[in-house]
Formats: sequence, C-alpha cells, structure tokens
Amino acid sequence: MSLLKTVICVLWAVCVGQTAGSQNGPNIIIMLMDDMGWGDLGVFGEPSKETPNLDLMTAQGMLFPNFYTANPLCSPSRAALLTGRLPVRNGFYTTNAHARNAYTPQEIVGGISQDEILLPELLKKKDYVSKIIGKWHLGHRTQYLPLKHGFDEWLGSPNCHFGPYNNSVRPNIPVYNNSEMTGRYYEEFEINVKTGESNLTQIYLKEGLDFISQQAMAQRPFFLYWAPDATHAPVYASERFLGKSQRGRYGDAVMELDDSIGQILAHLVSLGIQNNTLVFFTSDNGAAVMSGPHQSGSNGPFLCGKETTFEGGMREPAIAWWPGRIPAGTVSYQLGSVMDLFSTSLSVAGVLPPDDRVIDGLDLSPVLFNNSLLDRPIFYYRGNQMMAVRIGQYKAHYWTWSNSWEEFNMGINFCPGQEVPGVTTHTPEEHTMQPLIFHLGHDPGERYPISVQSKEYRDVHRQVTAVVEKHLKDLIPGMPQLNMCDLAVMNWSPPGCERLGKCLKPPQSNPWKCDWPH
Amino acid sequence: MSLLKTVICVLWAVCVGQTAGSQNGPNIIIMLMDDMGWGDLGVFGEPSKETPNLDLMTAQGMLFPNFYTANPLCSPSRAALLTGRLPVRNGFYTTNAHARNAYTPQEIVGGISQDEILLPELLKKKDYVSKIIGKWHLGHRTQYLPLKHGFDEWLGSPNCHFGPYNNSVRPNIPVYNNSEMTGRYYEEFEINVKTGESNLTQIYLKEGLDFISQQAMAQRPFFLYWAPDATHAPVYASERFLGKSQRGRYGDAVMELDDSIGQILAHLVSLGIQNNTLVFFTSDNGAAVMSGPHQSGSNGPFLCGKETTFEGGMREPAIAWWPGRIPAGTVSYQLGSVMDLFSTSLSVAGVLPPDDRVIDGLDLSPVLFNNSLLDRPIFYYRGNQMMAVRIGQYKAHYWTWSNSWEEFNMGINFCPGQEVPGVTTHTPEEHTMQPLIFHLGHDPGERYPISVQSKEYRDVHRQVTAVVEKHLKDLIPGMPQLNMCDLAVMNWSPPGCERLGKCLKPPQSNPWKCDWPH
Ligand SMILES: [Ca+2]
Ligand SMILES: [Ca+2]
Repeated sequence: MSLLKTVICVLWAVCVGQTAGSQNGPNIIIMLMDDMGWGDLGVFGEPSKETPNLDLMTAQGMLFPNFYTANPLCSPSRAALLTGRLPVRNGFYTTNAHARNAYTPQEIVGGISQDEILLPELLKKKDYVSKIIGKWHLGHRTQYLPLKHGFDEWLGSPNCHFGPYNNSVRPNIPVYNNSEMTGRYYEEFEINVKTGESNLTQIYLKEGLDFISQQAMAQRPFFLYWAPDATHAPVYASERFLGKSQRGRYGDAVMELDDSIGQILAHLVSLGIQNNTLVFFTSDNGAAVMSGPHQSGSNGPFLCGKETTFEGGMREPAIAWWPGRIPAGTVSYQLGSVMDLFSTSLSVAGVLPPDDRVIDGLDLSPVLFNNSLLDRPIFYYRGNQMMAVRIGQYKAHYWTWSNSWEEFNMGINFCPGQEVPGVTTHTPEEHTMQPLIFHLGHDPGERYPISVQSKEYRDVHRQVTAVVEKHLKDLIPGMPQLNMCDLAVMNWSPPGCERLGKCLKPPQSNPWKCDWPH
Repeated sequence: MSLLKTVICVLWAVCVGQTAGSQNGPNIIIMLMDDMGWGDLGVFGEPSKETPNLDLMTAQGMLFPNFYTANPLCSPSRAALLTGRLPVRNGFYTTNAHARNAYTPQEIVGGISQDEILLPELLKKKDYVSKIIGKWHLGHRTQYLPLKHGFDEWLGSPNCHFGPYNNSVRPNIPVYNNSEMTGRYYEEFEINVKTGESNLTQIYLKEGLDFISQQAMAQRPFFLYWAPDATHAPVYASERFLGKSQRGRYGDAVMELDDSIGQILAHLVSLGIQNNTLVFFTSDNGAAVMSGPHQSGSNGPFLCGKETTFEGGMREPAIAWWPGRIPAGTVSYQLGSVMDLFSTSLSVAGVLPPDDRVIDGLDLSPVLFNNSLLDRPIFYYRGNQMMAVRIGQYKAHYWTWSNSWEEFNMGINFCPGQEVPGVTTHTPEEHTMQPLIFHLGHDPGERYPISVQSKEYRDVHRQVTAVVEKHLKDLIPGMPQLNMCDLAVMNWSPPGCERLGKCLKPPQSNPWKCDWPH
C-alpha cells in the first residue's frame, strides 16, 4: 500500500471506524509467538526487560499468569488453537509410540483433517476476512494449506525455517503468498544462520499493518492470525535489532517482535479501531531450554521447557487487549488455554461453536469483560497420553518424563540445570494410582510433591480423580494424523513453483512410520 | 499521634512542604525487606502478582534488575548497607573457618565495630533525624545497639524473630523502643507460629507513618530505615492478609508489606513531600529456598538462594522512587549494590563520605537522575572469601559451594530442584586459575559455563583478572567481629528489663569459637 493510500485510509477510518465497528463483529488479532517462554516478558520477570511494548499492552489490558498451551510443541498447539480441541481429538498426535511429541516436519504425510472446522471457517458466517501471517505448521501438502481451511490470505510458511538445505536430499522450505509459493527460505527469503540476520519479522509486520489498513478501509471485520517465528531456532532479527538486547540473538528477536507488536497496536489506535478490536498475545509452547542460552528463551521460575508437560513446557505468556472493553491493568488468575481463543473469538463475533463435536475451549468473555473466574481443568498431554491435570492451584502428574536416557546421555537436556528426583524422570513413569501432586501457588517450580499421607493430598486426589475419570470416559480419540512419513511428500514442488522455475524432483515414495524420539 | 494532630500536620505540610524541602536535604527512606527474593515482585515475574503497589512504584520510578547485596545473609548485608563497606572490611564476617556465612544470633559476642561510621551518624551533619523500624541485626549487646550508632529512634528488634523460647535455656528476643526494651516476641509482641498471625507489620507501618508525619511537621529532614521482617521464617501476616494470596503464608506476608509500602508512598504524597523524598526499596539477601515452599520466596530464574553466592543468593529486587527527580517508568541496567545506598544517600544529602577508609559503595546519583551507566564490578563474598566477581554481563566464579554433603544429606538444600554439575558443588571448589565464567544476559541461571577454549573466555578472563588483582591488592580485611559466641550474652536482661520486670538470669560466661556450618 502506498503512503498516500495509507494516509487516506487512516483519515477515513478515524472518521467512520467507530460507526463501522458497531455494525460488524469486532476485529480479532491473535499474536502467536514461537517457542517464546513465559519468563521472556518484562512483566513476567525477564531481567533484561526487553519488552516495553508488551509491558505497556499489559498495563492497558489483562494479564494471564495461568495460561496454557494444549501440547508442548508447535503443530499440536496450533491445531488446538484453531480448532478449539485437544490434539488427541483433532488428530494432531501419533500412536506410533506412547506419549511421544509429534509435529509436521517436511516428511510428514498428514496434516489437519478435512473433518476439523477451523476458526476462520466459522468466522466466515459473519463476513470476516481472515489472514494468517507466518508459520502454519498444520501440514504442507496442498490439501492441508491455510486457504483450504478458511483463511482468505496467507503470507508465510508451512514449516519451521530450518535450513539451509541443498535442495537435492532435502528442499528448502517454501514461503507462500496465498495459495502459491513465492520463494524459499535461504533463497528469496534470506536468513543468515551465522550472523542471525533476517528481515522476516519486518516483512511479517508490514504485511500485518497493510492487511489491517485494508480491512479498516473496506469496513470488513477481520481475523488476523499473526504468527512470526523469529524466536524459534535458528533465531533471527533484522539489522536494526541485532546486538541490541542484553542477552544476545534471542533477546534481539524478542525486542524486534515486541517493537512490531507495539507498532500493530499503535496502528489500531491511529486507525481509530482499537475499541473494536480484540488482541490476544500468547506463545505456542514453552521456551526451548534444550537449545542452550543462545537460541532459547526463559521459562522464569518454572520447571523444564518445550517438549515436556512440566510448567516450563506448557505455561505461556498471555495478554488480552481491547481498550474500552477489557479493564486496563488487570490480572486474571483464570486457568486459560490456547483453545479458549477459538471459543472466545466465536463468542465475541457472535458465531455459535459447532455442536456436533466436543470443544475443549472455553468462552473467556466473562473473564475478559467482568473479571469472572470460571472453574475448569487444564489437561497436559504429550502425544496420546494425558500426563497431568491442573485444577485450581493443584497439578497432579499421572505420568512424568523429561526425555530418554539415550537422548540425555547425548547431551540433549529438556531441563538443564534442573533436576527434581522422582519428577524429572528419564523413563516414562506412571503414577496413575498415586499421582504426584503439587500446589502451584506455593511451588510454581514443581519441586515439592505434597505428602501422600496428608489430608491435603487425599482431598485433592479425590477431586482430581473425578475430573480425570469424567475426561477419559468421554474421550474419543481422533484419527492420528502424524503417524506416517515419506521423503516424497517434502516441499519439492509446491503450488506455484513452475511459475518461479523452482520445482524440484521428488524421490520415489517410500512411506514409513515416523519415529518420534521423545 | 492523634487523628486531629495528623490532619493538622497534613494540611500544614501540604502548604509548606515544598518550601521546607528546598531548604533541607531530601528525606531518605530505605525500605529493606528480609529474605524477599528477586522473583517475588509482580514486576519481576511472580506468577501470583501479589505486589500491585511495588509494581506501581516501579512505573513511577526506576527499576534495577541488576542490584546486589554484599553478602547472602542478613547481618553482613545490613552492615554493608549502613557502612557502605564490604563485610570483609567492616568486620561482619568470621575467620573461624573458610568461606562461612556468619551473622548475629543471640549468642554472638560481637557486633558493629565502634570504628565503623554508619550512615545516620554522617547524616547528622545535615541535621537529619534518623529512625530504624524493624530488624537491626548488627549486634544486640548494649554497645552495638542502633542509638549508639547514629540512629535517634528505634522500634524493633536486634535479632531475628525466631522462637518462642522458654526463657530459661534461651530468652525470647526483645523488642526495643529507642534504647530500652518494651517487650519480647511471643510475649508482648505476639507471633502465632501455628497460624502465622502477627500484627508486627501493622505496628511497623504505623510507626513509620507517624515518624514521617512528625518530621514533616517539624520541617526536619529525615532518614527512615524501614526494615520489617515478615518474609523471614517464621513468616507472618496480620489477620486481614492471612489466606489472601495465591501462594500461602509467604505470599500473605508479601501482600501486607506491599500494601504497607503503598500506604507509605501515598502518605508522602498526601503530605506533599514526595518531590523531596528519595525512597529506595530492596531486600537483604535472596529468598531462603532451603525453607521449602511455605516459608520461602522466589528467586525467579536465578540459581539457588540465600547463603550462596549464586545469583539467587545475592541478586535483589530494587526500585528507586523520587517523583520529579527520578524519571518515571525507567529501567536501569546499572550494576548496583546495597552499599551504594550509603554513598547515594550521602550524596543527595550533601554530606561527604569518610576519606580515611575504603568505601565500596558508589554514588548512584548520575544513574538515578540522568540514567547514566557507571562501570564497576560486583564482588560476591561468603565470609572471608571472595567467591565470584561480576563485570558487565560476565560473572566469574573463583570458588563454588552450595552447602556441605553433611548438611545436604540431612535434607538441607540451598538449591532445591536445581543442580548444575561442577557449579552447585557440595564441597568448596577452587577455580582460581580457571574461573567458571557465565554470561548473565544469555544465561541468568548460571547453567552454561563459557568454554575455556573460546576467545570470549580468554578476553573476559583477562579483564576480570585485572579487576580481581586490584581488589585483592588493596584489600585490608577488618577485624572479624563474628568469631566468638557465649550463651551469657543472650538477651537475658536487655536495658529497660527492670522497669518491665522482664529481666532473666544469664548463665555463667563460657565463650567459644562460633561454629558456622555453611
Ligand atoms: Ca513452537
Ligand atoms: Ca535476611
């Protein structure tokens, strides 16, 4: 969009924005970070205080210290967010082995099932225009792509930005503009793995600002799913931010994302649509502490990180912002989940959720608008296994596992510097008959299991048992989509590759049961 | 003070406060918490967000994420704060054994040396009235008490509020009003160890508010050293706060302290003296994580806690507040120390520091008023041993030790749930020839020592060596004051006990070299 066009649209929107807003459902923006930890925000204690814009967003909105992902890994977390359903229901899990984290690397055959109904599909009923910017991760084969599942627009990529690859054994990951590829990472979309420099966040920022301007001008309600991946290894930042933080490249990436979020919020204000836009900020899983200090964020006081069902793996930073609707400067102790973003978005848009399936998300409207507290459990899944459940301040572990001795002895550590005997176990340990129970208020770091001989334990155990029995009784697992792998399905020849002369020749199909090591 | 008197004084002060202020040095309030951890503040990430008043103080003032105590234990920390000197210089350490934490239990013979010059003594030169409210901890024998060392007033206690004792083997700790005892803990000053109820924080709050009112009315500049101990085990709170936090009794104590701090700041504003008062909030050492989840705070992302020279033992929450002088909503990355409160207080009061001795404190005025960054090292001492040093973002450990195997095997754990091989050692390990070096920006949790083979290591090692050599060359250790113990010196018959009929008979003197186990 040209500058003149932007100025006109801003002026025009300032005059009509409010009126237009009252005719439509509110705009919805979900800002989903990748592998950013709870402890990475200034407001959640990062010593370097790199997030002045998110801290300001908090002061103007509602902070959720008890907000969770549905799975400690990208793909199932994102599938849960967009379907409002646990991965074990929507199929984003594996049955190849017990309690294993599965996701969508290039060789995955599956993706989001045609039977699932995604948030943007439902928002169409109220004439929303939906755009995803950034990482999709719900399958990269043609039938799984965002424009087949309700999104109207897309700039971004189906997979993580790993690489560079040599395009013979493994192709570089494509970047899509809507339904066709527009280049590949490390080719048209540069990431310098050595220096950490890339302009991707700036590209995703500009795309977001432009989309918002366009919809404001068109007076159409919009859903923007803004999912940059700069904080996922290999972490990157643009030149202006490189070297600017107190803690290296990861912090630089955080600073650039924070700056971008500040710009997006300021843009909403300048367009005069801030009172008609719900913005929700969160992350897809805990910080990847196994990646060492240079490529990983912080999980603050919590145990372990990404891939695990300890708090460090699943508790997420979360802020809701809607000036005039959500009271400024509030803290909600509500137990929340990324799946609630599905239900809450539908609620504010005035769309009923599907009634032919179980929805795990909760409509947080009473929380956002009246600071109510809704009673609900949080289930911590790893693959096909419910590992733990939280009710109120209590968390009960039915299974514990960090990672295998085999991996651990190779130096892969999901809980570096942390070890709680009997808790951070290196074999999957079942505690079904006598779950490990922690009080997360007293003990957010899951270091002091409550004595099984105490009355407190017996009382909590009774309550938790009822919740778990009900959950498991009603649970009908969906068809697992992440069981099969095949090198032939990789991003050799994405749609649009012909036009760009970037089609690659796939190898012969030779599918195998994916091996998910942890 | 009666209500009417207060009202009159408030009205009067509102009119004349500003004028009066400009004639005198500014008022100085140091709020020193006991065993409160860096991670206990909302603004530093505590998930329960129990500190809205401290968070607001931060928004109105300057936050210091890199602020340190001079020793990971009460007594030496407090001695350093009030003298501006490292404990190894001012004598608040022991030579009975290597690298041991010493403090002032009831059986200590020594206390603050007559040769040391304390902050309130120096402030007298500018006609300051000085009051200490709460815990002193620089020696309880008559010659060591606050009114012998520059304070004009005192309400509080010389020791920790351990107890209750039976008054035959061990006396209960006295509470002083100025130079005479006015009762004892667990007797006139109740603490219910079972329920955790005590009104002490309310008493200390009221005493602080009254003192401020009186000095404002008298137009005399004041120094208030407000040192409540509710967050030191056994933690306590008053009835209104018990059960109110998300994390039990410790959180209740934090909420009450936070509420009190809010009231003190509001009182300054209502008296119209906020633009003439420097308020500094901090804590004396890291959270006592060895006390388990019910009696201990949080050190956020940092390693270990109280008693250790890891970040969890020595990094403190810190906020400076002076509306109109300190820019609101700022974060300073300055490396700061409790000893700087000595030098900075003298500076703003217009008093020169003593020139006959080494002062380790730094005048932070340029930081507070211009957000400058001053280059300076932080030394981490444990008893007589410099264990580590920080320059910039780098920390070099010359010695590592958590606690002994003997204690550890008894279940005393200074780093519960945390273990970094080769770092959290259970024997004192010397690394003088090749210090363990961490980048605290990348790695605030001290989990990833920098490879000794890297250029980064060699560069930092060279710089750090120069700093340490200079420090040790100039260091003349003071006479150790914490070597001798004697049951006869306990608080049997404090001054004023006759009047109250509360004198107890001491046993025969039988001094021994104190045994400091860690
Ligand atoms: Ca992720
Ligand atoms: Ca202390």
